[in-house]
Amino acid sequence: MASGEDDLIARYFRPLATDPGALGLVDDAAVLRSSGDDLVVTTDAVIEGVHFLPGDPPDTIARKALRVNLSDLAAKGAVPAGFVLTLVLREAKEEWLAPFARALGEDAAAFGCSVLGGDTVSTPGPLMISITAFGHVPPGRMVRRTDAKPGDRIAVTGTIGDAALGLRMLKGEGEGFDTLSREFLIQRYRVPQPRNALALAIRDHASASMDVSDGLAGDLTKLCAASGVSATVSLADVPLSAPVRAFIAKGRSDIEAAISGGDDYEVLCTVPENRWDSFAAAARQAGIQVSAIGRIEAGTAVPRFLDASGQPIQLKRLSYSHF
Amino acid sequence: MASGEDDLIARYFRPLATDPGALGLVDDAAVLRSSGDDLVVTTDAVIEGVHFLPGDPPDTIARKALRVNLSDLAAKGAVPAGFVLTLVLREAKEEWLAPFARALGEDAAAFGCSVLGGDTVSTPGPLMISITAFGHVPPGRMVRRTDAKPGDRIAVTGTIGDAALGLRMLKGEGEGFDTLSREFLIQRYRVPQPRNALALAIRDHASASMDVSDGLAGDLTKLCAASGVSATVSLADVPLSAPVRAFIAKGRSDIEAAISGGDDYEVLCTVPENRWDSFAAAARQAGIQVSAIGRIEAGTAVPRFLDASGQPIQLKRLSYSHF
Repeated sequence: MASGEDDLIARYFRPLATDPGALGLVDDAAVLRSSGDDLVVTTDAVIEGVHFLPGDPPDTIARKALRVNLSDLAAKGAVPAGFVLTLVLREAKEEWLAPFARALGEDAAAFGCSVLGGDTVSTPGPLMISITAFGHVPPGRMVRRTDAKPGDRIAVTGTIGDAALGLRMLKGEGEGFDTLSREFLIQRYRVPQPRNALALAIRDHASASMDVSDGLAGDLTKLCAASGVSATVSLADVPLSAPVRAFIAKGRSDIEAAISGGDDYEVLCTVPENRWDSFAAAARQAGIQVSAIGRIEAGTAVPRFLDASGQPIQLKRLSYSHF
Repeated sequence: MASGEDDLIARYFRPLATDPGALGLVDDAAVLRSSGDDLVVTTDAVIEGVHFLPGDPPDTIARKALRVNLSDLAAKGAVPAGFVLTLVLREAKEEWLAPFARALGEDAAAFGCSVLGGDTVSTPGPLMISITAFGHVPPGRMVRRTDAKPGDRIAVTGTIGDAALGLRMLKGEGEGFDTLSREFLIQRYRVPQPRNALALAIRDHASASMDVSDGLAGDLTKLCAASGVSATVSLADVPLSAPVRAFIAKGRSDIEAAISGGDDYEVLCTVPENRWDSFAAAARQAGIQVSAIGRIEAGTAVPRFLDASGQPIQLKRLSYSHF
């Protein structure tokens, strides 16, 4: 005589619990067996109306919830080991849960990060998915934010500013642009592309690393503060997708919006000059675009962002903040 | 130039992050160093309007959020190692956050389970705190739900049914009862007493164990199903507090409500007969009341609950379910 909650877990999530440590999701807890590695632990929640929109497809919500955490593991140089989730739902509907669980399972398999446990609770409010993810690194090898050194190159993966513009598309600001561009940007907002394929290169070559989730400018500022350094970024070198370039060219967006918008889920890392070639080669091998956008500098000044003429621009805001 | 979210974390939570693995809460992730032990992982969320009431004191909300997870660790025989939290707030108010963080820090220190990381997000909806907690056990020693054997005694800690009645007090059903009784029951609902002091005794003597969070009857049913056994419980042996006994004596509640109500956060475990004396002695030494309430039996029938005359009662419901 199982309850509705147990039925829900058995039906949708037990098939995903392929790791023996998940104990088939029938216990109070999961077990992570000792491996001799350090365990990297990260937790990130996505909430309806904040990180995704009411009515977003359940499959993209599932992928975003897991991927924002996978992105943290990638930035820390860790290999995914599994995750637990808290699923906060207004109701348990087959037509929502089935595609949600299917997409979660697909991503879990694709990234080698399977579900270990969770909690399912009802709410009268917005949907929320909170995930705590685990990754392995050899002892003492997690890449922190704190060890950037003057002279290090600053690198960023992928392209910056797509997701913030994708959110604007979803809010109806896409008029005058082609469907393909709009769809690309929306997809970048809904389904981040975590750079886990670059994790070992980051672990082996980066001096400091974090994921860009609240805006490149603000996140670089945090990394510099944590490392006790400053930085100079050449805005011309910040990688932008063709749709973002088109919006900027038409005067409908600007580089400041690109570097202060949230939801990029790219990796921002610093690489010592003598490791750059190895890092770039490893990135090519992994098939992940990395761009050198500036240098770490001595001092504790806020990072400077230089325009094409070499002049620092004044940013009105650095990043997204919840409060 | 820190954002409001960073200020909030720095001000209220960084002082609690005393574990070196928390990295002062300035990184994307925490590190759990390899210890050679297995890591037990549990996750439980509390949500306004479901697990606590709007207007409940922030300090009791903090304690409940952590303690429901500590209770899982205790039931699994694990020693607390730390936790990460996701804090979902409508607004960041000093008068709420200060006592919340203070109480969380007090409990973290008292139970030796300090904050390792977290995520703070804004919501237009109900408050929510999701915690993932970690505990250590020697390799292979986590106590599961799956190994109860016929003949084992069934034990439960503390008293059962207090919290469910406490919730009724908060809903205004306390008329005719003295303030002390009402306050005791309300406190049992708001601030569970996790039995971590009994963890090593459970680890060393129990064959199966879980925490009672959704109702003793339903939770025993789950344990028996997981172990492939049945059980008989003598309702006269189920430990009840004086206030619950008084409510039952006046006809305002009954034993069925006590064993099917949620939020007990006591430990339900099975102990082989030849370990019982050692288990009971360890419990006495730990200062924790344990009561033998029945026996595990062969078969897969739903557990039977016998009244004072030895007749099985029919339960209308076994436990609380979210869906």
